[in-house]
Amino acid sequence: MHVDVLAELVNSLPPGVVVTSPDAMDKYREDFARDGSAGKPVAVVRAETADQVQQAVRWAAAHRVPVVPRGAGTGLSGGSSAVDGGITISLERMRHIEIDPACQVAIVEPGALNAEVKEAAGEHGLWYPPDPSSFEICSIGGNLATNAGGLCCVKYGVTVDYVLGMDVVLADGRLVTLGGKQIKDVAGLSLLKLFVGSEGTLGIITRATLRLIPAQAARATLVASFPTMTAASSAVVAIRGRVRASMLELMDNASINAVEDWRPHGLDRAIGALLIAQSDAPEPASEAEIEIMRRCCEDAGSDEAFSTTDPETAAMFVAARRNAFLALEHRGSLLFEDVGVPVPLLPKLVEGVAAIAARHQIEIPVVAHAGDGNTHPIIVYDAADGGAQLRARQAFDELLDLAIELGGTITGEHGVGRAKKRALPDQLGPDVMDLTRRVKLALDPDGILNPGAIL
Amino acid sequence: MHVDVLAELVNSLPPGVVVTSPDAMDKYREDFARDGSAGKPVAVVRAETADQVQQAVRWAAAHRVPVVPRGAGTGLSGGSSAVDGGITISLERMRHIEIDPACQVAIVEPGALNAEVKEAAGEHGLWYPPDPSSFEICSIGGNLATNAGGLCCVKYGVTVDYVLGMDVVLADGRLVTLGGKQIKDVAGLSLLKLFVGSEGTLGIITRATLRLIPAQAARATLVASFPTMTAASSAVVAIRGRVRASMLELMDNASINAVEDWRPHGLDRAIGALLIAQSDAPEPASEAEIEIMRRCCEDAGSDEAFSTTDPETAAMFVAARRNAFLALEHRGSLLFEDVGVPVPLLPKLVEGVAAIAARHQIEIPVVAHAGDGNTHPIIVYDAADGGAQLRARQAFDELLDLAIELGGTITGEHGVGRAKKRALPDQLGPDVMDLTRRVKLALDPDGILNPGAIL
Repeated sequence: MHVDVLAELVNSLPPGVVVTSPDAMDKYREDFARDGSAGKPVAVVRAETADQVQQAVRWAAAHRVPVVPRGAGTGLSGGSSAVDGGITISLERMRHIEIDPACQVAIVEPGALNAEVKEAAGEHGLWYPPDPSSFEICSIGGNLATNAGGLCCVKYGVTVDYVLGMDVVLADGRLVTLGGKQIKDVAGLSLLKLFVGSEGTLGIITRATLRLIPAQAARATLVASFPTMTAASSAVVAIRGRVRASMLELMDNASINAVEDWRPHGLDRAIGALLIAQSDAPEPASEAEIEIMRRCCEDAGSDEAFSTTDPETAAMFVAARRNAFLALEHRGSLLFEDVGVPVPLLPKLVEGVAAIAARHQIEIPVVAHAGDGNTHPIIVYDAADGGAQLRARQAFDELLDLAIELGGTITGEHGVGRAKKRALPDQLGPDVMDLTRRVKLALDPDGILNPGAIL
Repeated sequence: MHVDVLAELVNSLPPGVVVTSPDAMDKYREDFARDGSAGKPVAVVRAETADQVQQAVRWAAAHRVPVVPRGAGTGLSGGSSAVDGGITISLERMRHIEIDPACQVAIVEPGALNAEVKEAAGEHGLWYPPDPSSFEICSIGGNLATNAGGLCCVKYGVTVDYVLGMDVVLADGRLVTLGGKQIKDVAGLSLLKLFVGSEGTLGIITRATLRLIPAQAARATLVASFPTMTAASSAVVAIRGRVRASMLELMDNASINAVEDWRPHGLDRAIGALLIAQSDAPEPASEAEIEIMRRCCEDAGSDEAFSTTDPETAAMFVAARRNAFLALEHRGSLLFEDVGVPVPLLPKLVEGVAAIAARHQIEIPVVAHAGDGNTHPIIVYDAADGGAQLRARQAFDELLDLAIELGGTITGEHGVGRAKKRALPDQLGPDVMDLTRRVKLALDPDGILNPGAIL
C-alpha cells in the first residue's frame, strides 16, 4: 500500500487511534482459535466512536481495503483473524453501557464485556441472560457477531433472542439504525436478525439495544455421575421432556481429569460423565424439578446424584465446567469444536467423537451444553509434533463431517470464522451457499468486510 | 394473459389444484384487512405438496407472473391481497403436522392452524407458545410470514423464537432447507430468521420445524380495573420490572363496552381500563407473583383487583380480550392498527390515540399486548358514509405517524402488508429501505414474489 494512502487514514483520525507498527498490531492478529490464517494488517484502528468506525470504513471502501472487525479477540473460529494488507477495526475502546430500567433494556457499545453488561443490569435488579463460558472476557460485539450461546441458553435462549436494536456501519461507511427499544417489531424485513451472527461480513455493529429481564431466581443444582456419556445423554433427553432446566451441562471423563489435573475441583476422576443441572424455578418448585431430574438420571443409569442449594458448592461445579478450556490449554495446543446435533443424537455424536479420537490416537475431551445438543469436543495435540498436528487437523475435519452426517451443525455458537468454512458448503448445500453469497454481495458488493470469514 | 400460458400451469398440476373461475377465486382475493387493494388473479393454486408449489413458482418465474402466497387469509395488513394478473398460491391444503417428542419439535406444513399445532404438541405433554388472538383460525404459515406474536409472548417470545428450520421455495422455484432439528446453529448467515416475517416477499415457506417446550403450568390470573389507560399502563411498567408475567393485556373503556354490547362477559362498563395479568410460575410462586402484581396495580391507582385460579373464570376474561375484534366487527367497518412503542411510552401512545379519535370524531377502541408495548387501536367507521371513511383513513395514517414519532413501530406483529407500507419509509429511513430493497433484489431479482407487499 502506498504510504500516502495509509497516511490518509492515520491523519483522518485522532492521535493514537490508528496504530501501524508491527509490534503494536501483533496482539490484534489472531483470536483464541489461533487458526494459522492470520495475515499482516497495514493498520489497526482502535475506534472510540461510531463516527471513527465510519471514517475508517469509508477510507477502506474508497481504496478497496479489507476490513476485519474485532471485539475482545476471544473468538474460537478465527473470525477476527487479520487479513494481509487489510485493516482491523478494534472495538475494544467502545465500552459504554447505559441501562434503561423502565424499558428494561441495555444500550451498549460493542467493546463492553458480557460480564460488564450483566453487572450493570444487575444494579437495577435486571438480568442479561446469554452467558458464554468466556463471559468474563468476551465482548458483546463478538457475542452479537457470532450469535453466542452459553450455559443458561437451554432455558433462556441465545444472543439473538435478546437483541432489540442495533447501529451497524455498512460496507460503504453509512450507519443504519435497526429496531429500537420496542419489544415487538415486524416493520420490514428482519435485517436486525440477519446482522446478528454475520461475523462482521455484512457490517460492523457499533451499538446494540439488548433486552433485559428481571433478575434470575436462586438456583438449585443437581450433580449426577454416569458410567458413560451415552447414559448421561439419555438422562438429558428425558429431562428436557419434563422440565425447563436452567442449565444442563455435561463433562466427559477426559475433561473431568483435565480440570482436576489443572486445579482440583473435587470431581470424581473415575466416572464416565458428569451432568450439572440447575433449576431456577421459584422454591419449592425448584425442589420438585430437581427431584424430577434426579429420577430421570436414575432411570438413565446414574451411579450417584446429589443436589444442593448452596451457591458456593454449585459454583464450584459450574466453574469446573467453564474452566475446561483453560485447563486443557495446559495440556497442549487446542482445536476448538462446537458441533451440535438434535438432542437425542447426543449419544451418537459422543460415540463418534470417541471413535475419531481412537482412530487418530489423539485426545478429544468433550464438554457440552447438552440440553441444546451443542458439544465442545476439544482436540488436544502437541504443536511441536508434526504428525500429531496433522492428525489433529484430520480429526477436526472429521468431527465437522460427523456433525453434518448426523443432521447437525458444524457450529452451534462459536461461528464459522475461518476455521470451519471448509465444511460450510457440506452442511448448507449449494443452493443455500448461493443464497448466502447473494446476500453478501447485496450488502458488501466489493467484498471488503471480513473477507475469508464464513465464505 | 394468453390462454395457452395459463393452460400450461393448469395442466402441469393435478386436477382441482388450480382454479381459474372468478367465483372460485373470489374468497382468495382478500384477507381480514380488506384493504381495498386486492386485484383479480388469473389463477389460484391450492397446492397439496411443496413440489406443486415449486411447479407453480417455476411457471410464474418463466412468465414473470406475480405470485402471492396465502395461508388461512386471516392477515390484518393485506399481506395476501391478490394481485391483478398474478396467481395466488394457497397453502390451506398443506396441513400435515408431525411431532418429534424426543427432539421436542413439530414439523408442520404451512396450512396447519396454530391451534392444531398446539393440540398435536399437547398430546405429547408439549407446548407451542406463540398465540395470536386468532390462533384458532390462523395458519402457521401466516404466523411465520408475519412473525406473529400473541398474548403469552410477553414471557415466551414470538414466532421467530421458535423456528428451528424451514423449507422455502425461492423465486426461481428452487427449494432450500434451512436449519433443522438442532437447537443452536450459527453455521452461515441467519437466512432462516430473514425469511421469518418476510411476508412472502422472499420465498414461500412449505415446511417448518418448530421448537416445543414442556406444557405450560396452571395459571393464576389477576384482573384489575383502573380509572384510566394511563394508570393501567403505569402498572404494566411496574409489573415488568418485578416479575415475568405470562400475560399482561389491556382493554380500554370503549373495547370493554363493545365486547359487552356484543355478548355479556361480565365486564364493568364504567371503568377506564381493564388489566388482565397472569402468572404461570409454579404454585405457590404464582400466588406471590400475583400479589406483587396486585401491589403494582394498587400503587398505580387501580380501583379494584381480584385474582383467581379458576381456569373458567380466567378464560372468560381472556376471551373478552380476544373477542374484541369480533365484537367490534358488529359495530361497523374496521381498520386494524398494530402500533407498538417502548413500554413506558404506552400512556403517551394511548393518549395520542384518544386525541386522534377526538380530532376525527371517530371511534378507536384500544386493546393491547401491554407488556410488550404493542397496541391494537381499532378504527370503527361506517363504510357507507364517505366522510367517515375518509376520516378513518386519515386517523389510520396519523396513528402510524404517532407510533413513529414516539420511537416505536407501525406494526408489532401483524406485518406491513399493503395497508401500512406507505409509512414504512418514515419508520425505517432511506438507508434501511435501501438495504431492504437490496436484499429483496438479491433474492427475487424479477420481483415476482408478493409484489406490493412491504415495498
